[in-house]
Amino acid sequence: MPRVSQEHSDARRRQILAAGRRCFAANGFHATSMQDLLREMNLSAGAFYRYFSGKDELINAIAEEAVDQAADDLAAFFAQEPLPPLPDLLAGVAGAGITPMVDRETQDVLMQIWAESMRAPELRKRVQAGFVTLLGLVADLMRRYRERGELPPDADPDACAQAVIGLIQGYLLQRSVMGLHDPEPFVTGVRTLLSPR
Amino acid sequence: MPRVSQEHSDARRRQILAAGRRCFAANGFHATSMQDLLREMNLSAGAFYRYFSGKDELINAIAEEAVDQAADDLAAFFAQEPLPPLPDLLAGVAGAGITPMVDRETQDVLMQIWAESMRAPELRKRVQAGFVTLLGLVADLMRRYRERGELPPDADPDACAQAVIGLIQGYLLQRSVMGLHDPEPFVTGVRTLLSPR
Repeated sequence: MPRVSQEHSDARRRQILAAGRRCFAANGFHATSMQDLLREMNLSAGAFYRYFSGKDELINAIAEEAVDQAADDLAAFFAQEPLPPLPDLLAGVAGAGITPMVDRETQDVLMQIWAESMRAPELRKRVQAGFVTLLGLVADLMRRYRERGELPPDADPDACAQAVIGLIQGYLLQRSVMGLHDPEPFVTGVRTLLSPR
Repeated sequence: MPRVSQEHSDARRRQILAAGRRCFAANGFHATSMQDLLREMNLSAGAFYRYFSGKDELINAIAEEAVDQAADDLAAFFAQEPLPPLPDLLAGVAGAGITPMVDRETQDVLMQIWAESMRAPELRKRVQAGFVTLLGLVADLMRRYRERGELPPDADPDACAQAVIGLIQGYLLQRSVMGLHDPEPFVTGVRTLLSPR
Protein backbone atom coordinates (compact mmCIF):
# COMPACT_ATOMS: atom_id res chain seq x y z
CA MET A 1 0.00 0.00 0.00
CA PRO A 2 1.51 3.39 -0.93
CA ARG A 3 2.57 5.46 2.06
CA VAL A 4 0.20 8.34 1.48
CA SER A 5 -2.71 5.95 1.54
CA GLN A 6 -1.63 4.46 4.87
CA GLU A 7 -1.35 7.95 6.30
CA HIS A 8 -4.76 8.82 4.95
CA SER A 9 -6.17 5.65 6.42
CA ASP A 10 -4.66 6.31 9.85
CA ALA A 11 -5.95 9.87 9.83
CA ARG A 12 -9.43 8.74 8.85
CA ARG A 13 -9.41 6.17 11.62
CA ARG A 14 -8.39 8.81 14.16
CA GLN A 15 -11.14 11.10 12.84
CA ILE A 16 -13.72 8.34 13.32
CA LEU A 17 -12.52 7.57 16.85
CA ALA A 18 -12.55 11.26 17.84
CA ALA A 19 -16.07 11.81 16.51
CA GLY A 20 -17.26 8.62 18.21
CA ARG A 21 -15.77 9.79 21.50
CA ARG A 22 -17.55 13.13 21.20
CA CYS A 23 -20.91 11.46 20.52
CA PHE A 24 -20.56 8.84 23.24
CA ALA A 25 -19.30 11.31 25.85
CA ALA A 26 -22.35 13.49 25.22
CA ASN A 27 -25.05 10.84 24.81
CA GLY A 28 -23.78 7.46 25.95
CA PHE A 29 -23.44 4.37 23.80
CA HIS A 30 -27.07 3.39 23.42
CA ALA A 31 -28.70 6.73 22.76
CA THR A 32 -26.16 7.37 19.97
CA SER A 33 -27.38 5.94 16.66
CA MET A 34 -25.26 5.02 13.64
CA GLN A 35 -26.85 8.04 11.95
CA ASP A 36 -25.71 10.34 14.76
CA LEU A 37 -22.21 8.92 14.39
CA LEU A 38 -22.07 9.30 10.60
CA ARG A 39 -23.38 12.87 10.83
CA GLU A 40 -20.71 13.81 13.41
CA MET A 41 -18.02 12.04 11.34
CA ASN A 42 -19.25 13.62 8.15
CA LEU A 43 -18.89 10.22 6.49
CA SER A 44 -20.98 7.88 4.38
CA ALA A 45 -21.93 4.53 5.86
CA GLY A 46 -19.71 2.87 3.24
CA ALA A 47 -16.66 4.88 4.31
CA PHE A 48 -17.29 4.09 7.98
CA TYR A 49 -17.67 0.34 7.42
CA ARG A 50 -14.27 0.20 5.72
CA TYR A 51 -12.81 0.88 9.18
CA PHE A 52 -15.22 -0.68 11.67
CA SER A 53 -17.75 -3.48 11.42
CA GLY A 54 -20.29 -1.44 13.41
CA LYS A 55 -21.01 0.51 16.58
CA ASP A 56 -19.85 -2.29 18.90
CA GLU A 57 -16.42 -2.53 17.30
CA LEU A 58 -16.12 1.25 17.47
CA ILE A 59 -17.05 1.21 21.16
CA ASN A 60 -14.43 -1.45 21.84
CA ALA A 61 -11.75 0.49 19.97
CA ILE A 62 -12.59 3.69 21.86
CA ALA A 63 -12.64 1.83 25.17
CA GLU A 64 -9.28 0.22 24.45
CA GLU A 65 -7.80 3.61 23.60
CA ALA A 66 -9.28 5.33 26.68
CA VAL A 67 -8.19 2.57 29.08
CA ASP A 68 -4.69 2.42 27.54
CA GLN A 69 -4.32 6.19 27.58
CA ALA A 70 -5.37 6.48 31.23
CA ALA A 71 -2.97 3.63 32.17
CA ASP A 72 -0.05 5.09 30.16
CA ASP A 73 -0.55 8.57 31.59
CA LEU A 74 -0.77 7.30 35.14
CA ALA A 75 2.33 5.14 34.57
CA ALA A 76 4.25 8.22 33.35
CA PHE A 77 3.04 10.22 36.34
CA PHE A 78 4.03 7.49 38.80
CA ALA A 79 7.49 7.18 37.24
CA GLN A 80 8.61 10.60 38.53
CA GLU A 81 12.00 10.66 40.25
CA PRO A 82 12.77 11.37 42.98
CA LEU A 83 9.58 9.94 44.45
CA PRO A 84 7.76 12.72 46.39
CA PRO A 85 6.38 12.07 49.90
CA LEU A 86 3.36 9.77 49.73
CA PRO A 87 0.65 12.38 50.52
CA ASP A 88 2.08 14.66 47.83
CA LEU A 89 2.09 11.89 45.25
CA LEU A 90 -1.49 10.92 45.99
CA ALA A 91 -2.74 14.49 46.13
CA GLY A 92 -0.83 15.11 42.92
CA VAL A 93 -2.58 12.29 41.11
CA ALA A 94 -5.83 14.20 41.44
CA GLY A 95 -4.40 17.68 41.11
CA ALA A 96 -1.41 18.04 38.82
CA GLY A 97 -1.82 14.45 37.75
CA ILE A 98 -5.19 13.49 36.40
CA THR A 99 -6.76 16.84 35.71
CA PRO A 100 -4.69 17.88 32.71
CA MET A 101 -3.91 14.27 31.77
CA VAL A 102 -7.32 12.75 31.34
CA ASP A 103 -9.29 15.19 29.23
CA ARG A 104 -12.94 15.64 30.05
CA GLU A 105 -14.17 13.77 27.00
CA THR A 106 -12.05 10.69 27.65
CA GLN A 107 -13.20 10.75 31.24
CA ASP A 108 -16.88 11.05 30.34
CA VAL A 109 -16.44 8.13 27.94
CA LEU A 110 -14.74 6.20 30.75
CA MET A 111 -17.90 6.53 32.86
CA GLN A 112 -19.95 5.10 30.00
CA ILE A 113 -17.40 2.32 29.55
CA TRP A 114 -17.54 1.39 33.24
CA ALA A 115 -21.34 1.15 33.15
CA GLU A 116 -21.45 -0.64 29.80
CA SER A 117 -18.78 -3.15 30.84
CA MET A 118 -21.22 -4.58 33.36
CA ARG A 119 -23.28 -6.05 30.55
CA ALA A 120 -20.69 -6.45 27.77
CA PRO A 121 -18.24 -9.28 28.61
CA GLU A 122 -15.69 -8.27 25.95
CA LEU A 123 -15.50 -4.72 27.27
CA ARG A 124 -15.45 -5.98 30.85
CA LYS A 125 -12.38 -8.14 30.13
CA ARG A 126 -10.58 -5.13 28.69
CA VAL A 127 -11.49 -2.84 31.59
CA GLN A 128 -10.49 -5.43 34.19
CA ALA A 129 -7.17 -6.09 32.42
CA GLY A 130 -6.40 -2.35 32.52
CA PHE A 131 -7.27 -2.30 36.21
CA VAL A 132 -4.95 -5.24 36.96
CA THR A 133 -2.07 -3.55 35.12
CA LEU A 134 -2.62 -0.34 37.07
CA LEU A 135 -2.88 -2.28 40.32
CA GLY A 136 0.55 -3.88 39.72
CA LEU A 137 2.07 -0.52 38.91
CA VAL A 138 0.74 1.18 42.04
CA ALA A 139 1.62 -1.84 44.21
CA ASP A 140 5.26 -1.49 43.09
CA LEU A 141 5.16 2.15 44.16
CA MET A 142 3.68 1.21 47.54
CA ARG A 143 6.54 -1.26 47.98
CA ARG A 144 9.01 1.60 47.46
CA TYR A 145 7.18 3.75 50.02
CA ARG A 146 7.31 0.85 52.44
CA GLU A 147 11.07 0.55 51.93
CA ARG A 148 11.41 4.27 52.58
CA GLY A 149 9.52 3.87 55.84
CA GLU A 150 6.55 5.97 54.69
CA LEU A 151 4.32 2.93 55.09
CA PRO A 152 4.58 0.49 58.02
CA PRO A 153 6.83 -2.59 57.51
CA ASP A 154 3.78 -4.87 57.48
CA ALA A 155 1.83 -2.78 54.93
CA ASP A 156 0.27 -4.87 52.15
CA PRO A 157 1.27 -3.15 48.89
CA ASP A 158 -1.60 -4.65 46.89
CA ALA A 159 -4.19 -3.62 49.47
CA CYS A 160 -2.77 -0.08 49.61
CA ALA A 161 -2.77 0.05 45.81
CA GLN A 162 -6.42 -0.91 45.70
CA ALA A 163 -7.34 1.94 48.07
CA VAL A 164 -5.16 4.40 46.13
CA ILE A 165 -6.82 3.49 42.84
CA GLY A 166 -10.18 3.77 44.58
CA LEU A 167 -9.32 7.39 45.40
CA ILE A 168 -8.47 8.08 41.76
CA GLN A 169 -11.65 6.43 40.53
CA GLY A 170 -13.72 8.36 43.05
CA TYR A 171 -12.08 11.57 41.89
CA LEU A 172 -12.86 10.86 38.22
CA LEU A 173 -16.42 9.98 39.12
CA GLN A 174 -16.94 13.20 41.05
CA ARG A 175 -15.53 15.19 38.17
CA SER A 176 -17.75 13.50 35.57
CA VAL A 177 -20.96 12.87 37.43
CA MET A 178 -21.02 15.53 40.14
CA GLY A 179 -19.49 18.17 37.87
CA LEU A 180 -16.73 19.05 40.36
CA HIS A 181 -14.10 20.37 38.00
CA ASP A 182 -11.93 22.18 40.53
CA PRO A 183 -9.46 19.57 41.83
CA GLU A 184 -8.34 21.67 44.82
CA PRO A 185 -10.80 20.53 47.54
CA PHE A 186 -10.30 16.86 46.72
CA VAL A 187 -6.52 17.30 46.64
CA THR A 188 -6.56 19.16 49.96
CA GLY A 189 -8.77 16.48 51.50
CA VAL A 190 -6.51 13.65 50.34
CA ARG A 191 -3.42 15.42 51.63
CA THR A 192 -5.04 16.09 55.02
CA LEU A 193 -6.27 12.52 55.45
CA LEU A 194 -3.00 10.91 54.38
CA SER A 195 -0.53 13.19 56.13
CA PRO A 196 1.23 11.81 59.19
CA ARG A 197 -0.67 12.94 62.28
CA MET B 1 -59.77 4.55 48.35
CA PRO B 2 -60.35 1.45 50.54
CA ARG B 3 -57.33 0.43 52.61
CA VAL B 4 -56.81 -2.98 51.00
CA SER B 5 -56.64 -1.31 47.61
CA GLN B 6 -53.96 1.13 48.82
CA GLU B 7 -51.96 -1.80 50.19
CA HIS B 8 -52.37 -3.65 46.94
CA SER B 9 -51.31 -0.59 45.02
CA ASP B 10 -48.20 -0.07 47.18
CA ALA B 11 -47.23 -3.73 46.83
CA ARG B 12 -47.68 -3.61 43.08
CA ARG B 13 -45.52 -0.50 42.88
CA ARG B 14 -42.79 -2.18 44.91
CA GLN B 15 -43.02 -5.24 42.66
CA ILE B 16 -42.56 -3.06 39.57
CA LEU B 17 -39.60 -1.22 41.08
CA ALA B 18 -37.91 -4.48 42.12
CA ALA B 19 -38.34 -6.06 38.69
CA GLY B 20 -37.08 -2.89 37.02
CA ARG B 21 -34.01 -2.87 39.25
CA ARG B 22 -33.26 -6.49 38.34
CA CYS B 23 -33.53 -5.77 34.61
CA PHE B 24 -31.54 -2.54 34.72
CA ALA B 25 -28.81 -3.99 36.96
CA ALA B 26 -28.32 -6.83 34.47
CA ASN B 27 -28.68 -4.97 31.18
CA GLY B 28 -28.52 -1.24 31.73
CA PHE B 29 -31.27 1.24 30.96
CA HIS B 30 -31.05 1.32 27.18
CA ALA B 31 -30.69 -2.35 26.34
CA THR B 32 -33.76 -3.09 28.49
CA SER B 33 -36.96 -2.79 26.45
CA MET B 34 -40.49 -2.22 27.75
CA GLN B 35 -41.17 -5.83 26.73
CA ASP B 36 -38.25 -7.09 28.84
CA LEU B 37 -39.63 -5.11 31.76
CA LEU B 38 -43.21 -6.35 31.40
CA ARG B 39 -42.00 -9.96 31.08
CA GLU B 40 -39.91 -9.66 34.26
CA MET B 41 -42.80 -7.94 36.06
CA ASN B 42 -45.30 -10.45 34.76
CA LEU B 43 -47.64 -7.55 34.03
CA SER B 44 -49.68 -6.28 31.11
CA ALA B 45 -48.74 -2.95 29.60
CA GLY B 46 -52.04 -1.55 30.89
CA ALA B 47 -51.26 -2.57 34.48
CA PHE B 48 -47.77 -1.05 34.25
CA TYR B 49 -48.98 2.27 32.87
CA ARG B 50 -51.34 2.71 35.81
CA TYR B 51 -48.20 3.20 37.92
CA PHE B 52 -45.63 4.79 35.63
CA SER B 53 -45.90 6.85 32.46
CA GLY B 54 -43.05 4.88 30.87
CA LYS B 55 -39.47 3.66 31.16
CA ASP B 56 -38.06 7.11 31.94
CA GLU B 57 -40.37 7.65 34.90
CA LEU B 58 -39.52 4.16 36.16
CA ILE B 59 -35.78 4.91 35.85
CA ASN B 60 -36.23 8.14 37.81
CA ALA B 61 -38.19 6.40 40.55
CA ILE B 62 -35.57 3.65 40.83
CA ALA B 63 -32.75 6.20 40.85
CA GLU B 64 -34.48 8.23 43.54
CA GLU B 65 -34.94 5.13 45.67
CA ALA B 66 -31.33 3.94 45.18
CA VAL B 67 -29.81 7.35 45.93
CA ASP B 68 -32.06 7.84 48.98
CA GLN B 69 -31.34 4.35 50.27
CA ALA B 70 -27.58 4.75 49.93
CA ALA B 71 -27.76 8.17 51.67
CA ASP B 72 -30.00 6.89 54.49
CA ASP B 73 -27.84 3.83 55.10
CA LEU B 74 -24.64 5.85 55.14
CA ALA B 75 -26.27 8.38 57.48
CA ALA B 76 -27.23 5.56 59.87
CA PHE B 77 -23.71 4.14 59.70
CA PHE B 78 -22.10 7.52 60.35
CA ALA B 79 -24.40 8.14 63.34
CA GLN B 80 -22.71 5.42 65.45
CA GLU B 81 -21.76 6.45 68.99
CA PRO B 82 -19.16 6.59 70.32
CA LEU B 83 -17.37 7.66 67.18
CA PRO B 84 -14.58 5.14 66.41
CA PRO B 85 -11.05 6.34 65.50
CA LEU B 86 -11.04 7.87 62.00
CA PRO B 87 -9.18 5.04 60.18
CA ASP B 88 -11.60 2.50 61.68
CA LEU B 89 -14.62 4.50 60.60
CA LEU B 90 -13.35 4.88 57.05
CA ALA B 91 -12.25 1.28 56.75
CA GLY B 92 -15.60 0.31 58.22
CA VAL B 93 -17.52 2.17 55.56
CA ALA B 94 -16.13 -0.21 52.97
CA GLY B 95 -16.07 -3.29 55.16
CA ALA B 96 -18.83 -3.58 57.72
CA GLY B 97 -20.47 -0.51 56.29
CA ILE B 98 -21.25 -0.63 52.62
CA THR B 99 -20.91 -4.29 51.82
CA PRO B 100 -24.03 -5.56 53.57
CA MET B 101 -25.78 -2.21 53.29
CA VAL B 102 -25.77 -1.55 49.59
CA ASP B 103 -26.88 -4.80 47.99
CA ARG B 104 -25.25 -5.75 44.75
CA GLU B 105 -28.29 -5.00 42.62
CA THR B 106 -28.72 -1.48 44.00
CA GLN B 107 -25.03 -0.92 43.49
CA ASP B 108 -25.07 -2.16 39.90
CA VAL B 109 -28.03 0.11 39.22
CA LEU B 110 -26.10 2.98 40.81
CA MET B 111 -23.33 2.51 38.20
CA GLN B 112 -25.94 2.77 35.44
CA ILE B 113 -27.45 5.82 37.13
CA TRP B 114 -24.08 7.56 37.34
CA ALA B 115 -23.41 7.00 33.63
CA GLU B 116 -26.95 7.86 32.57
CA SER B 117 -27.03 11.02 34.67
CA MET B 118 -24.38 12.50 32.39
CA ARG B 119 -26.95 12.81 29.62
CA ALA B 120 -30.23 13.02 31.54
CA PRO B 121 -30.49 16.42 33.32
CA GLU B 122 -33.38 15.34 35.59
CA LEU B 123 -31.46 12.33 36.84
CA ARG B 124 -28.30 14.40 37.16
CA LYS B 125 -30.05 16.90 39.44
CA ARG B 126 -31.22 14.05 41.68
CA VAL B 127 -27.78 12.42 41.84
CA GLN B 128 -26.03 15.69 42.57
CA ALA B 129 -28.56 16.57 45.30
CA GLY B 130 -27.88 13.21 46.96
CA PHE B 131 -24.15 13.87 46.74
CA VAL B 132 -24.51 17.31 48.34
CA THR B 133 -26.55 15.85 51.23
CA LEU B 134 -23.93 13.16 51.79
CA LEU B 135 -21.14 15.74 51.60
CA GLY B 136 -22.76 17.81 54.36
CA LEU B 137 -23.19 14.73 56.52
CA VAL B 138 -19.57 13.62 56.18
CA ALA B 139 -18.28 17.18 56.62
CA ASP B 140 -20.06 17.31 60.00
CA LEU B 141 -18.28 14.10 60.97
CA MET B 142 -14.93 15.51 59.86
CA ARG B 143 -15.60 18.55 62.07
CA ARG B 144 -16.06 16.22 65.04
CA TYR B 145 -12.79 14.43 64.23
CA ARG B 146 -11.07 17.80 64.03
CA GLU B 147 -12.44 18.72 67.46
CA ARG B 148 -11.13 15.43 68.82
CA GLY B 149 -7.70 16.21 67.42
CA GLU B 150 -7.75 13.34 64.92
CA LEU B 151 -7.52 15.87 62.12
CA PRO B 152 -5.24 18.95 62.25
CA PRO B 153 -6.83 22.20 63.54
CA ASP B 154 -6.67 23.75 60.08
CA ALA B 155 -8.27 20.75 58.31
CA ASP B 156 -11.01 21.73 55.87
CA PRO B 157 -14.01 19.49 56.72
CA ASP B 158 -15.61 19.86 53.28
CA ALA B 159 -12.39 18.98 51.48
CA CYS B 160 -11.83 15.94 53.71
CA ALA B 161 -15.44 14.88 53.15
CA GLN B 162 -14.97 15.02 49.39
CA ALA B 163 -11.94 12.72 49.59
CA VAL B 164 -13.76 10.34 51.96
CA ILE B 165 -16.74 10.08 49.63
CA GLY B 166 -14.31 9.55 46.76
CA LEU B 167 -12.98 6.51 48.60
CA ILE B 168 -16.50 5.13 49.01
CA GLN B 169 -17.34 5.75 45.36
CA GLY B 170 -14.09 4.10 44.26
CA TYR B 171 -14.90 1.11 46.41
CA LEU B 172 -18.40 0.74 44.92
CA LEU B 173 -16.97 1.07 41.42
CA GLN B 174 -14.35 -1.62 42.03
CA ARG B 175 -17.01 -3.91 43.39
CA SER B 176 -19.39 -3.40 40.45
CA VAL B 177 -17.05 -2.99 37.52
CA MET B 178 -13.91 -4.87 38.56
CA GLY B 179 -15.87 -7.61 40.30
CA LEU B 180 -13.90 -7.27 43.54
CA HIS B 181 -16.44 -8.55 46.02
CA ASP B 182 -14.12 -9.22 48.94
CA PRO B 183 -13.93 -5.94 50.89
CA GLU B 184 -10.89 -6.97 52.93
CA PRO B 185 -7.98 -5.74 50.74
CA PHE B 186 -9.62 -2.36 50.20
CA VAL B 187 -10.40 -2.02 53.90
CA THR B 188 -6.84 -2.98 54.85
CA GLY B 189 -5.44 -0.51 52.33
CA VAL B 190 -7.59 2.35 53.60
CA ARG B 191 -6.67 1.61 57.19
CA THR B 192 -2.95 1.48 56.36
CA LEU B 193 -2.98 4.71 54.38
CA LEU B 194 -5.02 6.64 56.94
CA SER B 195 -3.42 5.40 60.13
CA PRO B 196 -1.16 7.83 61.96
CA ARG B 197 2.42 7.11 60.93
